Amino acid sequence: MDAVQETGNLIAASKVQGTDVYNSAGESLGAIHDVMIDKTSGHVAYAILSFGGFLGIGDKYHPLPWSLLRYDTEMAGYVVNLDKSQLEGAPAYDTDDEPNWGDRTYEGKIHDYYGVGPYWGGI
Amino acid sequence: MDAVQETGNLIAASKVQGTDVYNSAGESLGAIHDVMIDKTSGHVAYAILSFGGFLGIGDKYHPLPWSLLRYDTEMAGYVVNLDKSQLEGAPAYDTDDEPNWGDRTYEGKIHDYYGVGPYWGGI
Repeated sequence: MDAVQETGNLIAASKVQGTDVYNSAGESLGAIHDVMIDKTSGHVAYAILSFGGFLGIGDKYHPLPWSLLRYDTEMAGYVVNLDKSQLEGAPAYDTDDEPNWGDRTYEGKIHDYYGVGPYWGGI
Repeated sequence: MDAVQETGNLIAASKVQGTDVYNSAGESLGAIHDVMIDKTSGHVAYAILSFGGFLGIGDKYHPLPWSLLRYDTEMAGYVVNLDKSQLEGAPAYDTDDEPNWGDRTYEGKIHDYYGVGPYWGGI
């Protein structure tokens, strides 16, 4: 049995992966596929949301700034204050593709889209 | 195919998990089992090193402050500046157990042991 889970302020990455994501209306938006870590600062930059496909076909990965996620114990998942149309227009990439992580121009667009400050500091 | 990997400054948690860990002498110390994330700040608090057992039996989990880890491309693993005897005396827990994450007294001991500042700031 693997007991590394969640207590207090800390959560295991393995517990975040696969967790369902809902919007404020309770609609399912998908699930967290992975978590991207800034190697130098040790900051979690993005939770990668798997969204938009059907039975895993046509899914896209949406990098969500970590600060958007709120865990809801009743839903047993993360709740983000986004509707589906907002996600449809959001920065995303194919599941067999990969963005140029670390490219501040690309990443800046993600933070601009969601209106939250970048993980590397600044406003 | 899953292309979420490592480029630039960011690394996927799924890529960290399972990565081998060596000391400076090139001895294998085990592998990264998981990554603990501070939910509020989004900081990676610890990489959990699976260490000390034989074929997975008797393994213990050692929380290592993230800042101790350096990725070595030649070794294809993380290198930490610790020898085995240091790890044997280090804070650890059984794989079917779980520390009280968020308990600053417990966590302070980890940071004191390794001589690195705590993930929640301060000196």
